[in-house]
Amino acid sequence: MGQQNKKAGTGGVSVGSQSFVPARSVYIRTSACVAGTKEGEGPLGDRIDMIGKDDLFGCKTWEEAESTLQKEAVTLALGKAGMKAEEIRYLFAGDLLGQSTASSFGTASFGIPHMGVYGACSTCGETLGLGTMAVSGGMAEDVICVTSSHFASAEKEFRYPLAYGNQRPPSATWTVTGSAAFILTSEVSKRNRARITGVTNGKIVDYGIKDSLNMGACMAPAACDLIAANLQDFGRKPEDYDKIITGDLGLVGQRALLDLLKEKNIDIEAQHMDCGIEIYDSNVQDVGSGGSGCGCSAVTLSAYILKMLEDGTWKRVLFVPTGALLSKTSFNEGMTVPGVAHGVVLEAIA
Amino acid sequence: MGQQNKKAGTGGVSVGSQSFVPARSVYIRTSACVAGTKEGEGPLGDRIDMIGKDDLFGCKTWEEAESTLQKEAVTLALGKAGMKAEEIRYLFAGDLLGQSTASSFGTASFGIPHMGVYGACSTCGETLGLGTMAVSGGMAEDVICVTSSHFASAEKEFRYPLAYGNQRPPSATWTVTGSAAFILTSEVSKRNRARITGVTNGKIVDYGIKDSLNMGACMAPAACDLIAANLQDFGRKPEDYDKIITGDLGLVGQRALLDLLKEKNIDIEAQHMDCGIEIYDSNVQDVGSGGSGCGCSAVTLSAYILKMLEDGTWKRVLFVPTGALLSKTSFNEGMTVPGVAHGVVLEAIA
Repeated sequence: MGQQNKKAGTGGVSVGSQSFVPARSVYIRTSACVAGTKEGEGPLGDRIDMIGKDDLFGCKTWEEAESTLQKEAVTLALGKAGMKAEEIRYLFAGDLLGQSTASSFGTASFGIPHMGVYGACSTCGETLGLGTMAVSGGMAEDVICVTSSHFASAEKEFRYPLAYGNQRPPSATWTVTGSAAFILTSEVSKRNRARITGVTNGKIVDYGIKDSLNMGACMAPAACDLIAANLQDFGRKPEDYDKIITGDLGLVGQRALLDLLKEKNIDIEAQHMDCGIEIYDSNVQDVGSGGSGCGCSAVTLSAYILKMLEDGTWKRVLFVPTGALLSKTSFNEGMTVPGVAHGVVLEAIA
Repeated sequence: MGQQNKKAGTGGVSVGSQSFVPARSVYIRTSACVAGTKEGEGPLGDRIDMIGKDDLFGCKTWEEAESTLQKEAVTLALGKAGMKAEEIRYLFAGDLLGQSTASSFGTASFGIPHMGVYGACSTCGETLGLGTMAVSGGMAEDVICVTSSHFASAEKEFRYPLAYGNQRPPSATWTVTGSAAFILTSEVSKRNRARITGVTNGKIVDYGIKDSLNMGACMAPAACDLIAANLQDFGRKPEDYDKIITGDLGLVGQRALLDLLKEKNIDIEAQHMDCGIEIYDSNVQDVGSGGSGCGCSAVTLSAYILKMLEDGTWKRVLFVPTGALLSKTSFNEGMTVPGVAHGVVLEAIA
């Protein structure tokens, strides 16, 4: 198999209007995730590798805590793979903070060439797509993709510091305190968690929505556009995927997505799953429309989706992290909240 | 030649510890740059494609003005290439604003799959490196890389709104109001501006400096690390480059860089040039240590460096945009200002 993989050559094959297929196989070698107390109490709690005792993770500020999440996730992933940082050629990292400081401060000490990425909550998909490009292209044998978010740093960044005690409408989502790191590799091994067989990069889609407390509605049009493009580029129907998994649309955004796709005669009701809905128990936990943030889809991928691919429950899924491209400044200046989504096709190894 | 190019296959070859060489040739098909009034009055003024009448570019806010810079740069580049947005497969874009809003709002209307990138002022190098990966890897035939900065939006983002009239020490740099867009292609043509023959991606380097008004000193260690890595990875000496061009170290950072490299027994005094020093005339224009920002290296590359490669004055240069990874929040919380740099080897076509 190793031989075959080498023979296949490197590079990628562009497919349809906005997708590509790796010419050289790319695998998720391993992954690790770290999360906060609320995520630990949620349905995925017992599958998360490490849960903090409190959400400061031993730091003085929320921002430092978020950096620590990334550092721990990368450290754990390297440990699981039995690899040293020097063996990783590139690190693709992002978060939601201004100037992506959680990734810069969280990953600097590894000394891995650093590619900062920003796609709001779609960043996990964007990093996996770029990492796949590097590995399938032969520019790297192993890369790490890591993203994070933190409830308290995100509230301060986008809305109000927690100390203000502002109220939140039911459409608001709850930013996940968490981070996950994924090691992508060209090396064939039975221990690899999944194979990346396709990437669809998304366009920015703006329906003119301005409500920063209804991110689901802002992102649903971009998710719709991405899913439709993926199905068209690969000539697939929704049933060709066991699951079509969006990042953090939440309950409100899920409804909007299903309706928008139906207008295009695409029905994914049977396949759709949203990480923001999976990561919390909305009946018990006070999370509004569901979870969100760069950490939401990343933690759910590491703790849950990859497990389902490993045990053969699912054979092929389309993973679509979704992002809302706003900043505090753009919101205060009355700008819209455009959405973006990036898609990765994941398949079981066996 | 076109045939040869196809035969060579796609992909990249990793070189040394952190570099790669495109297996399929990647060219800068064309580029365009737009800048503000102060840049128009500088030494590169007559080579900049479009200069605004005032720095609001017909918009109501500085942030919208920066978005407009990106939009105009991409539009001009497409026009020069005689291409439509649909012919571009991916757009790699970034800026300095929180959540990279200038790129999101500036480029959304083109409908090109969007990869948001953040590397502070090194972003121009990071986008060119990622774009090279996509084109040499065969995932795309044509991509656009675009970055921007705006003096007024950056002062508001990182320091104080202009209306405060705060003072600036001589070590401070002046953020360039400008944007440049580069179309990378695999297509062989005599009209291509330059060829990208190597990429070196940089590590985050942190010397513990905390002065956000002395960016040159914060970034010089990362530039030193990158240049040393590039020379080692490619087995080259400084004299193998006609120029080694940093992004925005300015006068203070240049001195630090030359000294740091001498400690490694590398002398680039004869080859070194800094975009931040070239873009303004520090004798006449009040710009402190020089220019800075994502727009600084981008505009200088488009308006000046590519011209020197086109007319054969230079055969091969190492282009090293440099970035300071701070945010207003990280600065206020007393964190250091780590640096990062990304390197691109550019060669004359003829």
